[in-house]
Amino acid sequence: MDNGHGGDIYAYENGGSITDFSANINPLEMPREIAEAVISGTGTLGRYPDWSCKALREKLAEYFGCAACDVICGNGAAELIFSIVYAHKPKTALLTAPCFAEYEKALTAADAKIQYHMLLPENGFTLAQDFEERLLPDLDMVFLCVPNNPTGVVIDKKRLTAIADICEKNDILLVLDECFQEFLDKPEESSMLDKISGRKSLVILKSFTKMYALAGLRLGYAVTCNHALIEKIYGHRQPWAVSVLAQSAGIAALAQTAFAARSRRYLQAERAFLEEGLAPLGCRVFAGSANFVFFYSALNWKERLLEKGFLIRDCGNYRGLEKGYYRIAVRTHEDNVRLLKAMRLILKEER
Amino acid sequence: MDNGHGGDIYAYENGGSITDFSANINPLEMPREIAEAVISGTGTLGRYPDWSCKALREKLAEYFGCAACDVICGNGAAELIFSIVYAHKPKTALLTAPCFAEYEKALTAADAKIQYHMLLPENGFTLAQDFEERLLPDLDMVFLCVPNNPTGVVIDKKRLTAIADICEKNDILLVLDECFQEFLDKPEESSMLDKISGRKSLVILKSFTKMYALAGLRLGYAVTCNHALIEKIYGHRQPWAVSVLAQSAGIAALAQTAFAARSRRYLQAERAFLEEGLAPLGCRVFAGSANFVFFYSALNWKERLLEKGFLIRDCGNYRGLEKGYYRIAVRTHEDNVRLLKAMRLILKEER
Repeated sequence: MDNGHGGDIYAYENGGSITDFSANINPLEMPREIAEAVISGTGTLGRYPDWSCKALREKLAEYFGCAACDVICGNGAAELIFSIVYAHKPKTALLTAPCFAEYEKALTAADAKIQYHMLLPENGFTLAQDFEERLLPDLDMVFLCVPNNPTGVVIDKKRLTAIADICEKNDILLVLDECFQEFLDKPEESSMLDKISGRKSLVILKSFTKMYALAGLRLGYAVTCNHALIEKIYGHRQPWAVSVLAQSAGIAALAQTAFAARSRRYLQAERAFLEEGLAPLGCRVFAGSANFVFFYSALNWKERLLEKGFLIRDCGNYRGLEKGYYRIAVRTHEDNVRLLKAMRLILKEER
Repeated sequence: MDNGHGGDIYAYENGGSITDFSANINPLEMPREIAEAVISGTGTLGRYPDWSCKALREKLAEYFGCAACDVICGNGAAELIFSIVYAHKPKTALLTAPCFAEYEKALTAADAKIQYHMLLPENGFTLAQDFEERLLPDLDMVFLCVPNNPTGVVIDKKRLTAIADICEKNDILLVLDECFQEFLDKPEESSMLDKISGRKSLVILKSFTKMYALAGLRLGYAVTCNHALIEKIYGHRQPWAVSVLAQSAGIAALAQTAFAARSRRYLQAERAFLEEGLAPLGCRVFAGSANFVFFYSALNWKERLLEKGFLIRDCGNYRGLEKGYYRIAVRTHEDNVRLLKAMRLILKEER
């Protein structure tokens, strides 16, 4: 069995010695304060977690300038994808393709009929102009991921706002997945968080997984002014979805603004480094803005790199993609240099 | 807002100074090895958890003498209640009442029609003889909790086996919640785990929450030989439901067999102590076998005890119960003595 995602190093016998470029996790060392918050939380494991995550929601509200009652936390953003779908019970939903596979999985689990807006390589996988025409009143739900996973493509805020307006008018729940948004240049400007007020149809998904490298701890959250929806989500999942340790780590992580800013700059520079390094290797790199690089190449990179101890994401199993598309996480400069060197060597061996 | 369960000490301003008798958690100090496993796990938080929990499932299989492929782990047993219901999509389900509220919540979330078999005080809240007659082929699912929460009542294994046989014959998924089963005298004998073989309709739910006092960490599991159902559950939830830390703590906890045996003996003795102490206070104690005591008394114990720094579970919000039913966890001898003393003082003040 395979979970179909990156980061599944457990599937490899020598998982411990593999450098994992398949999961898009901040490679910089986690600030001591976050680990300390987890460790000090071990003293209260006998207590059920606060089901409402009050202290964490208050910190998030402070951080983003929204209200604590606009926030619901989850066992990773992936849990919220399922909980929101189970709560909203859409009959029909619209997805872009390729995109993160869990939207389709959750919608299928809830027996929704799914329509697809295909993102095409000839358009650089951007949203085509006719996307808005698909947002008709008979639609119940739409997912957008910005920057998109696996392509890294961004939709500009003006267009996103117009999309949110149509969704509001036509009563379509728009779930905007901003899980990679914190890696953008000016995240506070590009985020749609300042647009939630008055929009009952807009839900923004965010996560601690990528920026704070807490993939293993499971912590994500959704922000919306639709409090009836939040109530409904609570009614469609267990009360204690978020562990005591995730709650305390999240609070500690939000204080690490310098770490986030430094990571952002570092990973942007390293993305440029990787993009420049990949182009001469015959890889067609698509312009993206997140902490990963998306490219096409006819060579079987995944298998060849695995032989050399690197795991990358073969995107051939994404709906709307085919064999030859790959996604690699931006890691530390040292790791990135090693990866490019291995790729050059593989090309030499091929000749 | 209130989550309707015990253990929500966060709802009280002075939560930190309250002695919590409302959540049924092992009060003995957690073995050092479990906390150490959590702490050492903080080094790998940047990795996604193993979605299949392979190492933990193998340890569980070894522990219980089943196969690793018979086990699916969850973010607490409560998560699995929802995931199993979402996966099975029952049209009609049967519950006993009173019982743990999350069965009804999950079934309602999945739009199932619920029938109730009422457990009556005049029968000591035991399962009436006509329960088996309700297990008709038009039923899709039934939940049983043994020992039952909040009553502590046990159904003997012979009868449970007969019930499982009817469910198997009539294709009714029987979810047997054994979350408190480890507190029974000879848990390895009373558990139905040795009956799963060949029964596609039997799922057993278990948890690390109570015995290992890991309520805050979230770790539970289900055991069944119905591998198609396990596949379906994976298809109806996110892949990374169980955190890295929960997986490593679970593995460490399973090695603590002496701790579990000691806790079992200790809590049984203390339950007897509490039962004996409650009877002269005008409390009608019902015969139960778990790490909690269930009783009836006309006095408003919850409010009165809260004034004295003790939180107990007012069971008035359970379907099938009314004001006057209470559940108290068995805690350390010192705490139990303090509670009984406070109750005696309250009775004196009442006179």
